[in-house]
Amino acid sequence: MREDNDAARSAHVGREGEHDIDRIESPGFVEAVVGAIEAGERDILRSLIADLHESDLGRLIEALPPPDRPRMIELLGADFDFTALTELDETTRVRILEELSTQTVVEGMRDLDSDDAVYILEDLGDAEKQEILAGLSVPERAALQRSLDYPEESAGRRMQTEFIALPPFWTVGQALDYIGETEGLPEVFFEVFIVDPTFRLSGSVPLDRLLRTKRGTKLGEVVTPDRHVVNVLDDQEDVARIFERYNLISAPVVDAAGRIVGVLTVDDIVDVIQEEADEDLKALGGVAGDEELSDSFWYIAKSRFAWLLLNLIAANLASFVIALFENELQRMVALAVLMPIVASQGGNAGTQTMTVAVRALATRELKPSNARRIVARELLVGLFNGVVFAVIMAAVVFARFGVMDLGFVIGLAMIINLVAAALGGILIPLTLDRLKVDPAVSSGPFVTTITDVVGFFAFLGIASLWF
Amino acid sequence: MREDNDAARSAHVGREGEHDIDRIESPGFVEAVVGAIEAGERDILRSLIADLHESDLGRLIEALPPPDRPRMIELLGADFDFTALTELDETTRVRILEELSTQTVVEGMRDLDSDDAVYILEDLGDAEKQEILAGLSVPERAALQRSLDYPEESAGRRMQTEFIALPPFWTVGQALDYIGETEGLPEVFFEVFIVDPTFRLSGSVPLDRLLRTKRGTKLGEVVTPDRHVVNVLDDQEDVARIFERYNLISAPVVDAAGRIVGVLTVDDIVDVIQEEADEDLKALGGVAGDEELSDSFWYIAKSRFAWLLLNLIAANLASFVIALFENELQRMVALAVLMPIVASQGGNAGTQTMTVAVRALATRELKPSNARRIVARELLVGLFNGVVFAVIMAAVVFARFGVMDLGFVIGLAMIINLVAAALGGILIPLTLDRLKVDPAVSSGPFVTTITDVVGFFAFLGIASLWF
Repeated sequence: MREDNDAARSAHVGREGEHDIDRIESPGFVEAVVGAIEAGERDILRSLIADLHESDLGRLIEALPPPDRPRMIELLGADFDFTALTELDETTRVRILEELSTQTVVEGMRDLDSDDAVYILEDLGDAEKQEILAGLSVPERAALQRSLDYPEESAGRRMQTEFIALPPFWTVGQALDYIGETEGLPEVFFEVFIVDPTFRLSGSVPLDRLLRTKRGTKLGEVVTPDRHVVNVLDDQEDVARIFERYNLISAPVVDAAGRIVGVLTVDDIVDVIQEEADEDLKALGGVAGDEELSDSFWYIAKSRFAWLLLNLIAANLASFVIALFENELQRMVALAVLMPIVASQGGNAGTQTMTVAVRALATRELKPSNARRIVARELLVGLFNGVVFAVIMAAVVFARFGVMDLGFVIGLAMIINLVAAALGGILIPLTLDRLKVDPAVSSGPFVTTITDVVGFFAFLGIASLWF
Repeated sequence: MREDNDAARSAHVGREGEHDIDRIESPGFVEAVVGAIEAGERDILRSLIADLHESDLGRLIEALPPPDRPRMIELLGADFDFTALTELDETTRVRILEELSTQTVVEGMRDLDSDDAVYILEDLGDAEKQEILAGLSVPERAALQRSLDYPEESAGRRMQTEFIALPPFWTVGQALDYIGETEGLPEVFFEVFIVDPTFRLSGSVPLDRLLRTKRGTKLGEVVTPDRHVVNVLDDQEDVARIFERYNLISAPVVDAAGRIVGVLTVDDIVDVIQEEADEDLKALGGVAGDEELSDSFWYIAKSRFAWLLLNLIAANLASFVIALFENELQRMVALAVLMPIVASQGGNAGTQTMTVAVRALATRELKPSNARRIVARELLVGLFNGVVFAVIMAAVVFARFGVMDLGFVIGLAMIINLVAAALGGILIPLTLDRLKVDPAVSSGPFVTTITDVVGFFAFLGIASLWF
């Protein structure tokens, strides 16, 4: 019977777990929580949020009216798990931390893993950071300060400084007993690291291998050198790529002297991968990579403005090209009616090529070794689609205006612009990448400027020669 | 001394590991490999690629001329690790498998984990798939066939069917001994699952807890129900979201009756997360989500064509709007010169809003509960930037044409179009999402159609009323 119950319970929890997601953000639940906060009913609040996963607790916080967020944390006191703050976006987190008393933050930080503590501290102002650090014990402060001294977005910032390091002359049995009996080991770990007396890393033994080796065997005999050691100063994006590429679950982090200083696990890396893809996607859409849904009107208006200003300059440039052909436009108004089609088609084809190129550069699929082949292929695709759309548009224009010549002119301009779009769409990201400028952020305006200028110039220019 | 050497070696391996990445794709190395393949020098080939990680081996394969790829695999025979094929993109993988003899593929599949075997098999044609399955032993075939029977992109397709399941009445000591002594257990595992006699899951015990519990304790006393149980039919994207959200390393997969049938680990999920972000990014750029860098000219030209055709229709629609104002354009050629600026600025602003909306919908940050607030904010940003750009353009136009009125007209049109862009950019993705259409794929053409049509109509319409 017992097992049956357990099985049923497990499946049930699984299903309930999914329900939780909706329940937490349902107006009824949020209202109940708000009611408890505003009435100062600590016990009710505690029973409502008991057993919530830190991630769900984070979602709940985001669903609360902003003034209730710090209030809830103060009310819960030691019952609030500060890990939930790592699940919030930066803007929301910083605002809550600014409202909380230093005492509350210091108490909350004590129970955190080092990587979570650093994650929460790093976005705060210097004065606030120091105030909080001052409240911690000397060893806690020293550990956090050391992580904070590493550059932003480095492995040193993201790593966990808790790990198990053992000497190679210990036996497997000693290691197993040590793990079984020692208090205060990391909550979750996948391997033990083998180090010399100066903490220089010689390799690791995964837990499952430890279990499958005879107790009398020395660790030094079963250690394997870690093939993927992360340097503490490595950029988190490079680290993420190594994790992805080699399907790593965790990797040791060493300093310049080869001493182990921490460990990175894949759950931290998943967030980095997400962030990175997110930044590329936003950059291609003309939005700052760090724009968050919770950002204020002002911040967003400002950050969007910069990109639009760039676009305005590009659009004015195109407009000057059009102005070169004022006489033709006056003589033949059909040119004005048709010219945006050529530019728009080029812009879209260019964006297609650019999107593929930017993404392939980000994932390192596009390399000097295959660049020539890809450029040739894009050119061919541009030429082919250019010819097809030239024929289609020539037919459409003939049907609309009854002028065969005009169809020929727009067709020729279409071919030229789609070839230009293909070239611009691939060569601009490649060039920016070579110049160490992020192609995701900067390619867009260049590509559309090219397709606008070439589109208008080709169409109006050919028309001026023809008619 | 020994430890020092180890430490040095480890750091060295780390550094060499990074070098490997470049070395593999360097022309010299690829040439050496090609030389060995074409001369049939199996031993040289083996020494060149010995110790390559499956991922690097995959990269090497991609760097080889296509005819040499299957040749290398045949030449290496049992020394070739078929796992490397999972690192290739689909087009390349399928082409290689078609070239290989069934015998070679069958032999290669034998050593694979079930999830890798399924990954390789699933893209093949039915006849080929059956031929390979027929070559395997009955239990191997049955296991793979069962996974293949689950729908594409389901948890059942991605899961590993090797896991350790133990009864709750076993002691920790028995479990540890079983793990230590049994051959053929999964290569890497993070927990043991506790099941009843019918394999219904009651929970799991992570390895580290197993190590820290007294040997005499019954597993049933230390088991915790898994809070995040995956159903075998769950879509891989939903599973990825659960992994991300709750920072999971692995999760059991159960069937409808709650029986454990497999386990999913985060390294498989990382690939799903990547793919998903990749698809959104490409879709926004007007490219099919499954377009790969290795795809043929034809496939790419065809897939890009569909999107461009849609855009052509939209551009022609905008062109018809312009044609409504032929008289105004004829009277005042400056309108033709300026009108693309209004349309372009709207298109870019709309893309910004749309990008943010599509991404926030994909990550479930944008929900009915906050949609109204976000729509209001985007509207405000559109209005604000509209006013700012209206002022800028009015000044530019006055400087260029010396006509105050024209500046006023373009300014007004700019405000209208940026507000329309904001509304279209957010409401179209929201509506598509509600209609269960992927907003990443379909929002673009709608948004730019709106900003083109509104841009031309507002500018030329106001001008026709004014002048």
